[in-house]
Amino acid sequence: MNDTANPTVADVRLTPILVADPPLLNTQGVHQPYTPRLIVEVVTSDGTTGIGETYGDAKYLELAGPFAQRLKGRRVSDLNGLSTVAEELAVDRARISGQVDVGGLRGVQSADKLRLSVLSAFEVACLDALGKTLGLPVHALLGGKVRDTVEYSAYLFYKRADHPEGVPCEKDDWGAALDPAGIVEQARRFTQRYGFTSFKLKGGVFPPDEEIAAVRALAEAFPGHPLRLDPNGAWSVPTSLRVARELGDVLEYLEDPALGTAAMAEVAAATDVPLATNMCVTTFAEIPEAFAQGAVQVVLSDHHYWGGLRNTQQLAAICRTFGVGVSMHSNTHLGISLAAMTHVASTVPGLHHACDSHYPWQSEDVLTERLTFEGGRTTVSDAPGLGVTLDPEKLRTLHRRWLDDDGTLRDRDDAAAMRVADPDWVTPAVPRW
Amino acid sequence: MNDTANPTVADVRLTPILVADPPLLNTQGVHQPYTPRLIVEVVTSDGTTGIGETYGDAKYLELAGPFAQRLKGRRVSDLNGLSTVAEELAVDRARISGQVDVGGLRGVQSADKLRLSVLSAFEVACLDALGKTLGLPVHALLGGKVRDTVEYSAYLFYKRADHPEGVPCEKDDWGAALDPAGIVEQARRFTQRYGFTSFKLKGGVFPPDEEIAAVRALAEAFPGHPLRLDPNGAWSVPTSLRVARELGDVLEYLEDPALGTAAMAEVAAATDVPLATNMCVTTFAEIPEAFAQGAVQVVLSDHHYWGGLRNTQQLAAICRTFGVGVSMHSNTHLGISLAAMTHVASTVPGLHHACDSHYPWQSEDVLTERLTFEGGRTTVSDAPGLGVTLDPEKLRTLHRRWLDDDGTLRDRDDAAAMRVADPDWVTPAVPRW
Repeated sequence: MNDTANPTVADVRLTPILVADPPLLNTQGVHQPYTPRLIVEVVTSDGTTGIGETYGDAKYLELAGPFAQRLKGRRVSDLNGLSTVAEELAVDRARISGQVDVGGLRGVQSADKLRLSVLSAFEVACLDALGKTLGLPVHALLGGKVRDTVEYSAYLFYKRADHPEGVPCEKDDWGAALDPAGIVEQARRFTQRYGFTSFKLKGGVFPPDEEIAAVRALAEAFPGHPLRLDPNGAWSVPTSLRVARELGDVLEYLEDPALGTAAMAEVAAATDVPLATNMCVTTFAEIPEAFAQGAVQVVLSDHHYWGGLRNTQQLAAICRTFGVGVSMHSNTHLGISLAAMTHVASTVPGLHHACDSHYPWQSEDVLTERLTFEGGRTTVSDAPGLGVTLDPEKLRTLHRRWLDDDGTLRDRDDAAAMRVADPDWVTPAVPRW
Repeated sequence: MNDTANPTVADVRLTPILVADPPLLNTQGVHQPYTPRLIVEVVTSDGTTGIGETYGDAKYLELAGPFAQRLKGRRVSDLNGLSTVAEELAVDRARISGQVDVGGLRGVQSADKLRLSVLSAFEVACLDALGKTLGLPVHALLGGKVRDTVEYSAYLFYKRADHPEGVPCEKDDWGAALDPAGIVEQARRFTQRYGFTSFKLKGGVFPPDEEIAAVRALAEAFPGHPLRLDPNGAWSVPTSLRVARELGDVLEYLEDPALGTAAMAEVAAATDVPLATNMCVTTFAEIPEAFAQGAVQVVLSDHHYWGGLRNTQQLAAICRTFGVGVSMHSNTHLGISLAAMTHVASTVPGLHHACDSHYPWQSEDVLTERLTFEGGRTTVSDAPGLGVTLDPEKLRTLHRRWLDDDGTLRDRDDAAAMRVADPDWVTPAVPRW
């Protein structure tokens, strides 16, 4: 094999960071003022550096170190081999003793999903490095883009104006959004700033009637635009069906109204509103039962926990084969992952729904230049690799914040963040309504 | 995008050939003395040539011309875009008016499958060209090999000593094999020449009891070795179950005992012998029903009609997700396709069954150097591209044979070939037994 064309991994740098996050509400609590992420740099034998990012909680960092050690000396192009590396990683059983992760927002937790969530950052970094070495954009390494831009949706959140007083945080300029008028106002700013034309509201925060009213208000303010509501499994089957009935005429889809495949299947059987998920189908192992039961009509892939961009393509192929739609899910992330999502989304045929992204909520990034949305779309880069550049100074600053943290924020905990302002807050039982 | 790294297609050469084929028997008839294949050469803007091959019957040639025209000027790396090119091709409805192709040996025929069968040769040629341009082996373009050698099985056939007297043909040195002793003798030569350790017998030729006896003889001669029997759907459900009962202790799997998903599902429900197929699941569209019914336990991918190496990887991912095994099917093919099969097979995790290949039956090839089997395995090439070289003189010779043919052999027709020796031969009704 040609060593110039196909270098090996000479070094890996892992940098945990804390990145500013606004006080966005969900059914579990509220986003912390800073969210942990892990930045991965893969340095090749020819001196090229590729970058990736993933979740930065301690349980991911624990696996990233041994993963990085095992990666050294391997071919950058050996992406299929990353699974073998991941399978060798010992996962502390205490890390997966709970049924769900971050209050269920990332679906059921498993050792394999933890491994894949770490693998994905290395896969993206290897693709970036390989693309730079070969002079090819990442999408070309994925078989080539089938579209030049990728559409994203405005990701609307119920939101407090500020994090609790006295808590260190970055001030954002979005203001509060705690009722239908506030959500519509937030949506307007999304359209003005980024041109988004479809809207997703993170629900499960207020009683269903209030959220129904918010979606109705959006439908009036933006007639004909695709709308989605995602309560993160907070509702019972009857509540889900009531919401589906009341909003059926304006919803593009309902996202995870109820928790788990059985409940989702029950909802799906009784409504024509399509159901999307990033909670009941989050691994390949969950697909057969969910598809057999007709529990979901759209799978929202998160390349972080599906194990990278190529696994996301495989997921898309499976969905296509079984007549299930596919789009992209998002948790708090930076520009590296937005670039990665954009590259893979550009290669997926039949992407009929705008992808989700938290990126507009992140005022900070580790890139020299932020990615932009125009008309709600991000342009697919044709530059070698991901087409983005790491800013070492920004990375250092966010890493210093992580170093300076006393451990409070190093594991994302939306319920704990909620208890700072509301000491009596208890993670709601499911179904909440 | 970097034009040096990512050249465009400057020219495409299509060369139909006729390649010598021994008188191998199957349930439809006998192989013609010469089988049509199409050799595709893709010449890039940087002067690199990539090669591919596929079926060479007229209906494929009809589509290959327009495909080649549309390919010119496109990026060699734009593999996802090949589907778009294929979808534009108009298929003559008369070509797909029948339910099955070559007597059913390639599964149900459809316009999409015809298009994909043509696409696959161009995909392989583009991968070969791209690999040569980048200095990477094709397996690296597919995410990297997970094994250094790929195991193949000995593909045993009932066989006449010669083609009918007076018919132009190449004489082979395998002799006749028309009973258990002949099959065992053929298997011995396969092991001596190539080191194969698993055996597949093409059945559906003689009444089931004779073929049961042949497999029993193989089991005695090669105790503990994996054995397979493939009657190409010639049996009824009761016959299939009887064979499964009688050979259950020695069979690795039964391949397509009965025709169609419903019959296969009926057989599968009543036996523990795994069922493999290259007939009832030959397209992505056929997967959901077959998997839901549990009709097959192993899908044998033929990259030619599944639409190339990347589609084969997607098929493998689907099979893995649904707990269905995967291996590779083969029709008469040359070294280009064996190289392509070996590259993709080297990237597929969990390949638990030796792949099929007709290659040992082909005394002719268009390569400067034949691929070899050692210990029943082919070594995965790490040279750029496929790692094989086209021999222009050999190609010319086989093309001249195609030019000189009066049309009799340009469309493979095993029943017509059978009628040359046996004018009363009628394609058997299904089920035959």
